[in-house]
Amino acid sequence: MTPPRGPGASHPKEAEPERIETPGTAPSTIWVGAGVLDTAGRYLASPSGRFLLVGAASARTWTERLRASLPSAPLLDLTIPDGEAAKTLASVDAIAEAAFAAGVRRDDAIVAVGGGVITDVAGFAAAVLLRGIAWNAVPTTTAGMADAAIGGKTAVNHARGKNLLGAFHPPRTILVDPLCLGSLPDRDYRAGLVEAYKAAWIADAALAARAAAALPSILAREAAVLRDLLAGAARVKARLVSEDVRDAGARRLLNFGHTLGHAIEAAGGYGTLRHGEAVAWGIAAALEISRRRAGLSDSDAGAVRAVLSGLGPFPAPVRDPNVLRPFLGLDKKATSRGTAGILLERIGRARVEESVSVEEWLQAAAIMTLS
Amino acid sequence: MTPPRGPGASHPKEAEPERIETPGTAPSTIWVGAGVLDTAGRYLASPSGRFLLVGAASARTWTERLRASLPSAPLLDLTIPDGEAAKTLASVDAIAEAAFAAGVRRDDAIVAVGGGVITDVAGFAAAVLLRGIAWNAVPTTTAGMADAAIGGKTAVNHARGKNLLGAFHPPRTILVDPLCLGSLPDRDYRAGLVEAYKAAWIADAALAARAAAALPSILAREAAVLRDLLAGAARVKARLVSEDVRDAGARRLLNFGHTLGHAIEAAGGYGTLRHGEAVAWGIAAALEISRRRAGLSDSDAGAVRAVLSGLGPFPAPVRDPNVLRPFLGLDKKATSRGTAGILLERIGRARVEESVSVEEWLQAAAIMTLS
Repeated sequence: MTPPRGPGASHPKEAEPERIETPGTAPSTIWVGAGVLDTAGRYLASPSGRFLLVGAASARTWTERLRASLPSAPLLDLTIPDGEAAKTLASVDAIAEAAFAAGVRRDDAIVAVGGGVITDVAGFAAAVLLRGIAWNAVPTTTAGMADAAIGGKTAVNHARGKNLLGAFHPPRTILVDPLCLGSLPDRDYRAGLVEAYKAAWIADAALAARAAAALPSILAREAAVLRDLLAGAARVKARLVSEDVRDAGARRLLNFGHTLGHAIEAAGGYGTLRHGEAVAWGIAAALEISRRRAGLSDSDAGAVRAVLSGLGPFPAPVRDPNVLRPFLGLDKKATSRGTAGILLERIGRARVEESVSVEEWLQAAAIMTLS
Repeated sequence: MTPPRGPGASHPKEAEPERIETPGTAPSTIWVGAGVLDTAGRYLASPSGRFLLVGAASARTWTERLRASLPSAPLLDLTIPDGEAAKTLASVDAIAEAAFAAGVRRDDAIVAVGGGVITDVAGFAAAVLLRGIAWNAVPTTTAGMADAAIGGKTAVNHARGKNLLGAFHPPRTILVDPLCLGSLPDRDYRAGLVEAYKAAWIADAALAARAAAALPSILAREAAVLRDLLAGAARVKARLVSEDVRDAGARRLLNFGHTLGHAIEAAGGYGTLRHGEAVAWGIAAALEISRRRAGLSDSDAGAVRAVLSGLGPFPAPVRDPNVLRPFLGLDKKATSRGTAGILLERIGRARVEESVSVEEWLQAAAIMTLS
């Protein structure tokens, strides 16, 4: 494995990126910093030194800039469509086809540049190509930076639900460059921030307080506050996934808002609500259950809602229990024993509650509010 | 996880199956014994206690018998076609579709019943369904018993080559019942034995000697000698994969005969030669290189060839270097540094030789012989 070259004396001066590690048997190194994309060649990892670029159509600008920083031409430079519709086994097959045509070997590495769809699908391709090659994630959206790229979950959708096929295959390196967010459409920008705040709410009260106070600056995309929130969210996620790679314990806290969120997203038809928007509603429902069962105070619930409200307004969700019910049963976190839930005890502290029933979620969906 | 129930005092007396473990973070338990299929319910593992059967069309008899031994009806009983043509991403998708329709949850387990194609494709489906559920392998062919099911390699083919997409996902339990081999066509029976003998040649001289002497009885499918060879091969494979789950060192010894074997198989068009037949030719070529570079004696080379000859005659392979060359370059074991080779120093001892070039393999292919 090529060791990442830290910024050396011979390079022009720039702000040092922050380094975050997820320890474990398949560690990821996360670099967070404005401009890190233009020095990507120093950080990206490939055992052979060779890279296969897989970039989103919408992130072409960033792929070009990253490409210019590589020490040599990539083995492959493939552009694939954005959007949930591209998150299929067929896209994995298309990446595989291009990679084999380019002569990929098991010590080469993929570099995925784009939103969560691209990192999920290219990461899954890396997981199954030749039974697993290395990969690097370069998320270019708030959702990707806050959530999708960290922790090694990769997946594609299936006709019956989202992320139903996938693998745990952490990227060697994740580059988070807030400058990529400059051109992101406002709706995507705001929806993705839900996941970043979520990380703070479940595990870092101080970060949650700073980021709540800084909400106007964050919405104005000011680099310094954005970096604080994204690096903080990455630290939370890195810590939780290190404790639990395969989703059995601590890691499940990251699913705060996701049990009902996934159902809302699926029931409305993918694309109607952004993932982050559906999670915002799922959090609103989880706040109701948390007040009743986890001792969450009204003031903490109100503080979470105030931030979600500031990130919105978000489109109205499906609330009809008959529409939502079948989708709740498909949740991947469900076991044959029932549906679990992540509840908030207070800002900065969440817990897994195994006994939240489908009907409780449906009742919360009926009354949840973001105002 | 449901602990395997050992044969208890309340069950009718029968020959104890042999238990072999592959240690590690994702261990498999292998049970070898005549009749073990009819008591499968005691050994198969599922965290939820629920099973999804995925059986080969040709192995329907065995799936029915296994099904009758389960404590309750399986969640799914899916029959899929045999043969390399079925070993595709589309088959994985079909298994996924059926599993989701049946309401699969992450604590359920697949039971794959059939030859190497079925265990490879159903094992791969288990690896990616909901990012990985448990599975059990019930190989019903010599090839599957000797090789495909043990070690956790799962895969499907791609237009550009065999096993190019896959995952490392060991089954919880593997049941090896030599009685399943009674109805196997002779050509398949013999080709699959190549892998069983191969295991002996690379790592167990005593087993190799016993199995060479017993060749006529093995060809007559006598249960006791067959069990000795299959259990011995399983022990070799279990030991080598435990030392090296991800194919970097000791495990590579199992690829003895496979570097050229895969190329011969692909160049001839899949289905022309059985996998084991192509591996037999690959071993013949490796013997040539081993005599020159690894000190293999003429008598040991002759002893290996005598067994292969007894297992045959096998159809003639492609020898044309221009036809074989591109397929050698696609070998998954190749890295950007070149093609490796597994050489035999003496019967019972093999080693990895990193510097065997494509041209050396092609020269050996031109002169290799099984007589």
